Amino acid sequence: MTTATLLVSCPDQKGLVAKVADWLYSHNGNIIHADQHTDASAGLFLMRVEWQLAGFNLERQEIAASFQPLAAAIDAKWQLHFSDRVRRVAIFVTKQDHCLYDLILRHKSGEINSQIPLVIGNHPNLEAIAHNFGINFHHVPITAETKATQEKLQLDLLHQYQIDLVVLAKYMQVLSPQFLAAFPQVINIHHSFLPAFPGAKPYHRAYQRGVKIIGATAHYVTEDLDEGPIIEQDVIRVSHRDAVADLIRKGKDLERIVLARAVRLHLENRVLIYGQTAKSKLGLRTVVFD
Amino acid sequence: MTTATLLVSCPDQKGLVAKVADWLYSHNGNIIHADQHTDASAGLFLMRVEWQLAGFNLERQEIAASFQPLAAAIDAKWQLHFSDRVRRVAIFVTKQDHCLYDLILRHKSGEINSQIPLVIGNHPNLEAIAHNFGINFHHVPITAETKATQEKLQLDLLHQYQIDLVVLAKYMQVLSPQFLAAFPQVINIHHSFLPAFPGAKPYHRAYQRGVKIIGATAHYVTEDLDEGPIIEQDVIRVSHRDAVADLIRKGKDLERIVLARAVRLHLENRVLIYGQTAKSKLGLRTVVFD
Amino acid sequence: MTTATLLVSCPDQKGLVAKVADWLYSHNGNIIHADQHTDASAGLFLMRVEWQLAGFNLERQEIAASFQPLAAAIDAKWQLHFSDRVRRVAIFVTKQDHCLYDLILRHKSGEINSQIPLVIGNHPNLEAIAHNFGINFHHVPITAETKATQEKLQLDLLHQYQIDLVVLAKYMQVLSPQFLAAFPQVINIHHSFLPAFPGAKPYHRAYQRGVKIIGATAHYVTEDLDEGPIIEQDVIRVSHRDAVADLIRKGKDLERIVLARAVRLHLENRVLIYGQTAKSKLGLRTVVFD
Amino acid sequence: MTTATLLVSCPDQKGLVAKVADWLYSHNGNIIHADQHTDASAGLFLMRVEWQLAGFNLERQEIAASFQPLAAAIDAKWQLHFSDRVRRVAIFVTKQDHCLYDLILRHKSGEINSQIPLVIGNHPNLEAIAHNFGINFHHVPITAETKATQEKLQLDLLHQYQIDLVVLAKYMQVLSPQFLAAFPQVINIHHSFLPAFPGAKPYHRAYQRGVKIIGATAHYVTEDLDEGPIIEQDVIRVSHRDAVADLIRKGKDLERIVLARAVRLHLENRVLIYGQTAKSKLGLRTVVFD
Repeated sequence: MTTATLLVSCPDQKGLVAKVADWLYSHNGNIIHADQHTDASAGLFLMRVEWQLAGFNLERQEIAASFQPLAAAIDAKWQLHFSDRVRRVAIFVTKQDHCLYDLILRHKSGEINSQIPLVIGNHPNLEAIAHNFGINFHHVPITAETKATQEKLQLDLLHQYQIDLVVLAKYMQVLSPQFLAAFPQVINIHHSFLPAFPGAKPYHRAYQRGVKIIGATAHYVTEDLDEGPIIEQDVIRVSHRDAVADLIRKGKDLERIVLARAVRLHLENRVLIYGQTAKSKLGLRTVVFD
Repeated sequence: MTTATLLVSCPDQKGLVAKVADWLYSHNGNIIHADQHTDASAGLFLMRVEWQLAGFNLERQEIAASFQPLAAAIDAKWQLHFSDRVRRVAIFVTKQDHCLYDLILRHKSGEINSQIPLVIGNHPNLEAIAHNFGINFHHVPITAETKATQEKLQLDLLHQYQIDLVVLAKYMQVLSPQFLAAFPQVINIHHSFLPAFPGAKPYHRAYQRGVKIIGATAHYVTEDLDEGPIIEQDVIRVSHRDAVADLIRKGKDLERIVLARAVRLHLENRVLIYGQTAKSKLGLRTVVFD
Repeated sequence: MTTATLLVSCPDQKGLVAKVADWLYSHNGNIIHADQHTDASAGLFLMRVEWQLAGFNLERQEIAASFQPLAAAIDAKWQLHFSDRVRRVAIFVTKQDHCLYDLILRHKSGEINSQIPLVIGNHPNLEAIAHNFGINFHHVPITAETKATQEKLQLDLLHQYQIDLVVLAKYMQVLSPQFLAAFPQVINIHHSFLPAFPGAKPYHRAYQRGVKIIGATAHYVTEDLDEGPIIEQDVIRVSHRDAVADLIRKGKDLERIVLARAVRLHLENRVLIYGQTAKSKLGLRTVVFD
Repeated sequence: MTTATLLVSCPDQKGLVAKVADWLYSHNGNIIHADQHTDASAGLFLMRVEWQLAGFNLERQEIAASFQPLAAAIDAKWQLHFSDRVRRVAIFVTKQDHCLYDLILRHKSGEINSQIPLVIGNHPNLEAIAHNFGINFHHVPITAETKATQEKLQLDLLHQYQIDLVVLAKYMQVLSPQFLAAFPQVINIHHSFLPAFPGAKPYHRAYQRGVKIIGATAHYVTEDLDEGPIIEQDVIRVSHRDAVADLIRKGKDLERIVLARAVRLHLENRVLIYGQTAKSKLGLRTVVFD
């Protein structure tokens, strides 16, 4: 079943659900999933609606033009996605393989609807894994001195492979503001329950602090390290019996699962970022229409 | 802010969101919360929509009549609720006080929007607690022989106190089909993760089975014991170190929280029961619009 | 069943379990519970052992003297507790009543083995609750100017009521280093998943940050605000649908449960604080022998 | 660091910890981990103790003979394991690959200390995966008619490959009592929160029942289907939005993690089975010394 999905955000006002639903119904749209949220503190209305293309009486290339006047009238930002336009994902790695394997295997089993044509490693260690699953691997080593040049090389690869989304799967490098300006669609997995333990070595610091629960956080990457909008988090109990190595082992399961959920939600167009309007003191945050 | 809430279920068909949203918008309704769900296996569309009465251009006594033609056209079952029509709750108890205290204190703190004018106990033990919070207590002992008579007495009390909802807060009696036919709005807390350990002494049986997690289940009461539609469940880890007494202690926190969540969801009109249509093999189940 | 409990910590070395177990066995001790932990990073051995007094061939007043030579030989810090020496707890409150009620009701049901003779409030709001359960209430208002004097008054009350443990049950004041030096046994509940959101208004900040999980933390109070050794933590999922008021409501259940577990573990002598030895970079942390 | 581990169970009596610890100390044993549990309802004492072989003044082949008199004196059942005697695991599969991949990858990353020389499938589908990681694959199809013969073939393979443990990784066949009598060390993953939904199609039945939480259970296999002693369980929340396909997808993560934890605990000799003594009505259950 091929579907179209609209993600809409606009200033809150009366009649928004009616207007969007009417537009769909007037074109004989069969809604599969609709959800909406009003954030009173931000004065924003956010909506996701997904409908079948079969039976819809607009051609897919006509849909955007048909929706545009309504979007303008309600002052909306919006995205339109088609389920058969499979997104192309590049995975950035360093040496740890558990998140890379996890994403590849979920892709292989059909759990993640995407293509994965490209893996980029700043170390060459995981090349064999990529090749084993028929994925191209590029080794792009990075040092402080070569960062600008090598990020340019990464961006060229993303362009060449027509990549839609970059997933940092335990990629132990910080992306520069220049990289993010050129390619903003990046999801990262951080191995702590943010905002606890941002930065380096969170498991070691969790151990030293003596917490009883550890976590992992998947978020969009922004210029502010570990401050990007959170998509998904999960946690697991630990005790005094768990040494740092146990926290790392337990955390790996969290990292795998939390990152995979976030990637899946993004690829199903279920995540909307908002915040930091004139009316609010909110940070950048997400609505997850799950 | 006074609101009206519609709960609607009807056979799935195109245009349902548009029709309901249009009706609201045509009367200048400002939607506070809208959520809908389509159960493909049952062929059903289920919807909850809540809007402000202030600014709505129908008087509250006109609303049902205005919605009726639309409801008929889409073959809908529906309920209309007003947030300032506070529901009246009776709590049935035996000897354990933790759920009774919990509900009373949440009511007192404003967390549960209701009146609690009546507690009925088949034992007199908890009378002082009810009186302490200004609630009438009726002792209605029940034996196998007196059950029919005493349930009639209970029903008379429910009528006399104009009760909308009965909450079984560790009430150690089974309600008869006759009682439920006369008063069907009953929520129970069962001290296991149903369908595991239905019936008596679930903690003892959980211990004997050696499970590593225990749970609690809040559900609407039906004639089939412990088979009613589930509203909410939660669980907690246990280990070999936990004796039956520990399971009981840990379970009490689950019982309190799960029952309170279910009562709150019901009183906010967030729960719709469905299932067992001609098209489906589903049991009775719930949509929880939270 | 009356029991004695030893809590022992000492530098790790061979034969520690044998020595302690031998001492007990030589006096005909019947062990009910024994647990031990070696923290390799700190070079420390920590042990809890609980045994029946019935049948033990030392009088209770002889036990400490009998154990002392062994403790000296292994360079141990140790505590000896008797289960029938019921600890006396004072609860400090401000205006919120949910943790106060929770502790009182758990005490009443026998879940927390203690006496609660005293509640101190810096506001008078909760006096009626204390009185209702036969507990003395003292109103000790505190301002920046009066803090030193009023804390002295609090310490006098703790002395007068022979208090063993102070529980801060949503007490919205910081205890001074002078207070803690005079009375160090204090447990606090912080309404976040520490070290995330230390300090004021954690639920507001959790909302602004857009986290998907919130938590609560019970810890011993030290001079470093919200940095004391953690006894227990727990979490609950939240979503974009949850406004700050929902986080506060959901968090109240966490606060109740996490604080009650910590108080219970402390009163059962299951918590040992350690860390910050010469060998380690550890913060102060706990072993919880549960 | 090479270690020895003793798992001991015997009738509860005074001095057991002292006797075992003394025996170890008398041979200069350095304890790494010790834990014990008394099940009062079964009248049983259960213990795990692990110590370094370096410095121990018995040769490894002398240890059993040295411990035997003590074991006889306390009427103990016991096992002795050495950490450098790596166990050999066979994985039984059908068509689903997620648990197979998971176990292989955890083995590869060092998280599971074992050898995996053999995969047996009743269908040939997963042969390529086994070969890809250098593991032998045997296709042993089974029908009702051929079951006895084919199980004999399986047992021959287990013998030939010197297998210590069989893991049923979504193996969709029931092992016969004859098989289990010949090879009793078998761990299975069941895709429900047992004892809820034993038998076939638990996710479909969970959906029909409308539960709000699903789970997975790893257990030792006994003649009574899905009744064997539970090693580990875990759960995840679901809602009305989750169709059966979503339950299956969410459940796969549970299955992977719960099975891996159970296998790891078994291979680290942390699991003791007990129950069904003359004194108790317990089912077979486990102590997990984690």
